[in-house]
Amino acid sequence: MAKVAFIGLGVMGYPMAGHLVRHGHQVTVYNRTQTRADAWKAEFGGSVELTPCDAAKGKEFVFVCVGNDDDLRQVTLGETGALNNMSAGSILVDHTTASADVAREIGVLASAKEVGFLDAPVSGGQAGAENGLLTVMTGGNESHFVQAKPIIESYARCVELLGEVGAGQLTKMVNQICIAGVVQGLSEGLHFARSAGLDGEKVVEVISKGAAQSWQMENRYQTMWQGEYNLGFAVDWMRKDLNIALNEARKNGSHLPLTALVDQFYSEVQAIGGNRWDTSSLLAKLEKNRK
Amino acid sequence: MAKVAFIGLGVMGYPMAGHLVRHGHQVTVYNRTQTRADAWKAEFGGSVELTPCDAAKGKEFVFVCVGNDDDLRQVTLGETGALNNMSAGSILVDHTTASADVAREIGVLASAKEVGFLDAPVSGGQAGAENGLLTVMTGGNESHFVQAKPIIESYARCVELLGEVGAGQLTKMVNQICIAGVVQGLSEGLHFARSAGLDGEKVVEVISKGAAQSWQMENRYQTMWQGEYNLGFAVDWMRKDLNIALNEARKNGSHLPLTALVDQFYSEVQAIGGNRWDTSSLLAKLEKNRK
Repeated sequence: MAKVAFIGLGVMGYPMAGHLVRHGHQVTVYNRTQTRADAWKAEFGGSVELTPCDAAKGKEFVFVCVGNDDDLRQVTLGETGALNNMSAGSILVDHTTASADVAREIGVLASAKEVGFLDAPVSGGQAGAENGLLTVMTGGNESHFVQAKPIIESYARCVELLGEVGAGQLTKMVNQICIAGVVQGLSEGLHFARSAGLDGEKVVEVISKGAAQSWQMENRYQTMWQGEYNLGFAVDWMRKDLNIALNEARKNGSHLPLTALVDQFYSEVQAIGGNRWDTSSLLAKLEKNRK
Repeated sequence: MAKVAFIGLGVMGYPMAGHLVRHGHQVTVYNRTQTRADAWKAEFGGSVELTPCDAAKGKEFVFVCVGNDDDLRQVTLGETGALNNMSAGSILVDHTTASADVAREIGVLASAKEVGFLDAPVSGGQAGAENGLLTVMTGGNESHFVQAKPIIESYARCVELLGEVGAGQLTKMVNQICIAGVVQGLSEGLHFARSAGLDGEKVVEVISKGAAQSWQMENRYQTMWQGEYNLGFAVDWMRKDLNIALNEARKNGSHLPLTALVDQFYSEVQAIGGNRWDTSSLLAKLEKNRK
């Protein structure tokens, strides 16, 4: 059993840190809003520190799951950042969905202190975090990966090494790019089906047997058809992720016309008040545009 | 066992008509190019007629599977069309992917002669036709459907009634709209993955476990990654289908920005010589545009 710190008790981090306790690890947490850290401690035990730096002190593994590149820099590299207090041989694991650039930046600085670094964004959403069934896309050194994997498995069912530092973030970008296309296609399909007066349930039952099938079709069609958009990952966060992917694409020279367009469609969802709706709300915008 | 005619022995119709023979039906065929009808007869037995009208004479069921609305009108409503020789109580089943308008037009004319009509476009491609595992999306009257279903099951594993005449075509349009989004999203994802230097196989292994998963990802990723685009349904045919959907959308007032865009992307695939490539060749165009 390991001595670990968990920094960032958001919708994802809160249950993930809880799973670490359930698996017998000795967990110290830090959260920007301290009352939430106190609530976590009341629920799971463990201990709370007031800075990332204090939380990281003497730990074998430090896990981070915060909002974006800036938050990540602050809690790892900032004045009270975790890296200040990590010792040679310890490993920093970042679960934030962030840029590959910030991952490489932290990787280099960690390496200079002989601290291991893994970029390890997750998929599976809030339900995956709560049920300990996340997928973790990891970039970094194989020996660091092998050490961290059993701990990460406290809250994940699939933990894979995809390449050097940054490869986890890049894989997460591929994931979000594919989702953008699937969700927009499915939204247009359902919007058309309603306009055509079809029975959505029957249509999906038939077309989900073949080449049009997708996880989104099987898991989101029903709520979409009912105009319910409160099932997890929010539009604001999806735009953050798509922006990361589009910025990386500018650098690596890839051409993402649909991804750029869907990002703009999400901005229209925001414009009609959908910032906190889930990603399937692309349909809401189409329905609003119906002639 | 029924006396049936099958009109149109293309890539799909040829094996479909063969399955009817294998299931013990008495099959008469017609094909525009007669040598292909003769080849079919040499392989399966049955008989060949020189016009749709002659083929249809005295049959309980007439099946059609031709190229487009015009072909369909010609072989059903034209001077030597099947409907001229069909008697009250017989049923005309059209497997062409066509407009809902032409389906309704034929439905009305058939009805005037007390002939049943079902629009019944299929999915599952050439492999589905050859293996008798098609999905059939049917529109029409329930009693006609119940009579035709057992015969159709000679080459289909899923035969569903979606609503009145036209509902089969409309459902097929939903199918193609969803596919357009999935394939473009997947193409951008793989294009980005290659630009980012990732291992495509590992990436797909991980992301296909979650919200980015699709039939296309599971069944086409490998050939796409290798730049092979000879697995079935051709770009020319997909553009025909998307055009049908976009025309219907103009009428029913639905808004299909991605579908319209992907149709244009397929025109770029045609421009680089990909008319006969399969639908996953959207990736080829992206790879060509790489900086």
